[in-house]
Amino acid sequence: MSSPRDPVDTQTISFSDLTELLRQIFMRHGTSAEVAAVLAENCASAERDGSHSHGIFRIKGYLSSLAAGWVDGQAVPKVEDVGAGFVRVDAGGGFAQPAMQAAKALLIEKARTAGIAILAIRNSHHFAALWPDVEPFAQEGLVALSVVNSMTCVVPHDAQKPLFGTNPIAFAAPRAGGQPIVFDMATSAIAHGDVQIAAREGRLLPPGMGVDRAGHPTEDPKAILDGGALLPFGGYKGSALSMMVELLSAALTGGNFSFGFDMSTKPGAQTPWTGQMIIVIDPDKGSGHAFAERSEELVRQMHGVGQQRMPGDRRYRQREQSLAEGIVLSTDDLNRLKALASA
Amino acid sequence: MSSPRDPVDTQTISFSDLTELLRQIFMRHGTSAEVAAVLAENCASAERDGSHSHGIFRIKGYLSSLAAGWVDGQAVPKVEDVGAGFVRVDAGGGFAQPAMQAAKALLIEKARTAGIAILAIRNSHHFAALWPDVEPFAQEGLVALSVVNSMTCVVPHDAQKPLFGTNPIAFAAPRAGGQPIVFDMATSAIAHGDVQIAAREGRLLPPGMGVDRAGHPTEDPKAILDGGALLPFGGYKGSALSMMVELLSAALTGGNFSFGFDMSTKPGAQTPWTGQMIIVIDPDKGSGHAFAERSEELVRQMHGVGQQRMPGDRRYRQREQSLAEGIVLSTDDLNRLKALASA
Repeated sequence: MSSPRDPVDTQTISFSDLTELLRQIFMRHGTSAEVAAVLAENCASAERDGSHSHGIFRIKGYLSSLAAGWVDGQAVPKVEDVGAGFVRVDAGGGFAQPAMQAAKALLIEKARTAGIAILAIRNSHHFAALWPDVEPFAQEGLVALSVVNSMTCVVPHDAQKPLFGTNPIAFAAPRAGGQPIVFDMATSAIAHGDVQIAAREGRLLPPGMGVDRAGHPTEDPKAILDGGALLPFGGYKGSALSMMVELLSAALTGGNFSFGFDMSTKPGAQTPWTGQMIIVIDPDKGSGHAFAERSEELVRQMHGVGQQRMPGDRRYRQREQSLAEGIVLSTDDLNRLKALASA
Repeated sequence: MSSPRDPVDTQTISFSDLTELLRQIFMRHGTSAEVAAVLAENCASAERDGSHSHGIFRIKGYLSSLAAGWVDGQAVPKVEDVGAGFVRVDAGGGFAQPAMQAAKALLIEKARTAGIAILAIRNSHHFAALWPDVEPFAQEGLVALSVVNSMTCVVPHDAQKPLFGTNPIAFAAPRAGGQPIVFDMATSAIAHGDVQIAAREGRLLPPGMGVDRAGHPTEDPKAILDGGALLPFGGYKGSALSMMVELLSAALTGGNFSFGFDMSTKPGAQTPWTGQMIIVIDPDKGSGHAFAERSEELVRQMHGVGQQRMPGDRRYRQREQSLAEGIVLSTDDLNRLKALASA
């Protein structure tokens, strides 16, 4: 019997070993210990959960941006308490995740006391999936909504040239009978990471995802990456949501718009230098009733009308398997990571 | 020369006269003076701005629900202050708009002080467009986001039967050089009101909007209304947003889900008995910079890449014309309204 795919030599690694390996890589490439710990856990979590476009696939881009001096791996976030429900952070040109980590305890305290709180991060680089930023709040019984803008690659609806980033929206809510309901969606028709993976694997994309450098529709991921652009999902509605993400992540935080920075000054730069917004709500203040029981009821009803899988379910299943059996990596990838950790 | 359409006999009425006429209609059909004033302005504003699916077209449904005893036109909203950033209202089985009106000053005060505030309305009927609920905040320099669930008519992505409502999301943000940026989008592929208007006018719908009673795709609006259902916009992403609207409007507020009430017990009932959530943010707390200048910059850039029209622009243009020249109604419609006002 022959397989249409070449067999790939694989190995398994535990979540904690992968996290430690990535931590060493970040440390070896110019980040502080604090930043390395946050990014390593974030990136290992994505790989563990099968979010391959935001797992170890991203390491090359992280290190390239660090080497270029485009992002400050040593940045110390400055947290400011500006209201009973408002925290803002200047990430100092570093990564967004350590900035959120620095403000997280204060944000949660404010959400529980005031009922709702907002975190406005600016001067930050977000190069990861967005669901890891919201899921932990739902694990603590809170509802969280986050948006982050990225870099110009999406043509607004009815426009001719790209302006918006892929501008994802992530949402997390607790439920009584299972893992939180979590979604993380690009407002582009496809995530940029998925275009990169398709290009790497030589696959065509479905129609409606993007345009080539001349602005014509294309299914070739390489044509999109080579001077082309993505389209918003769902026509004018997705485009309006992408605009909202620019307003909340950049205009509101004081961060850059997706079109507001020039990476060409730092060859090797890959991470978008923008802003991020997170809203956290204590849902039980809404009516005095238990939110998680109500959301569980919604899940039951969704299953009842035939929706098999809740947003996030695939990640949870992959997570369970990875934690039980280890994370499967190609031997090549693992060797590359090990080399980077001792480089 | 002959026209493919019969000429319709029309008359014009000023915005204030239409508001007063609608106020009298609501008063004559069982609402309190407070409720009549709020609903009349809301409905007249929609007609003024060309939002025909939520203008005088809705009066019949309002009066039918009032006559059925399904909605309480005399309800007095109970406002509770539950945190530095959290206000909740029990609308008492009345309309959502008077409930918001009752809490509005407190909500704005909290947003300005705490930086962000949330209003959770429950036990409420929302039968109007959603943009009138958010635009006024942006007129005062604030950013507003609102969601409201409605009644089961949308099949979740990959499910077999309807569960969600049309579940709109509305957003408003100030800008320095013009009217606020405002959008109001159903998370269904089409708004229910637009299906009703297409059915009334005998038009077919574009593909992908809905299914018939057997669950098969259809372009016939009557087949959708006659036991069929709508689809979410943008596939699984619009479906996830619709789910989020259920969680925020119902689970969080203590209101009914879109599937959580039985209108058949009150023949003539037409208004969805659910909940509504509004988040208001003071955007200048984000970075100390002027948000409205940044949003103006975004608008300039959007125009620069070829987007002709900003969300809300069509309404503002129609508004200007209506205020200058009067609102054009068919003589039949105007006579019908006058008859209802003196009935």
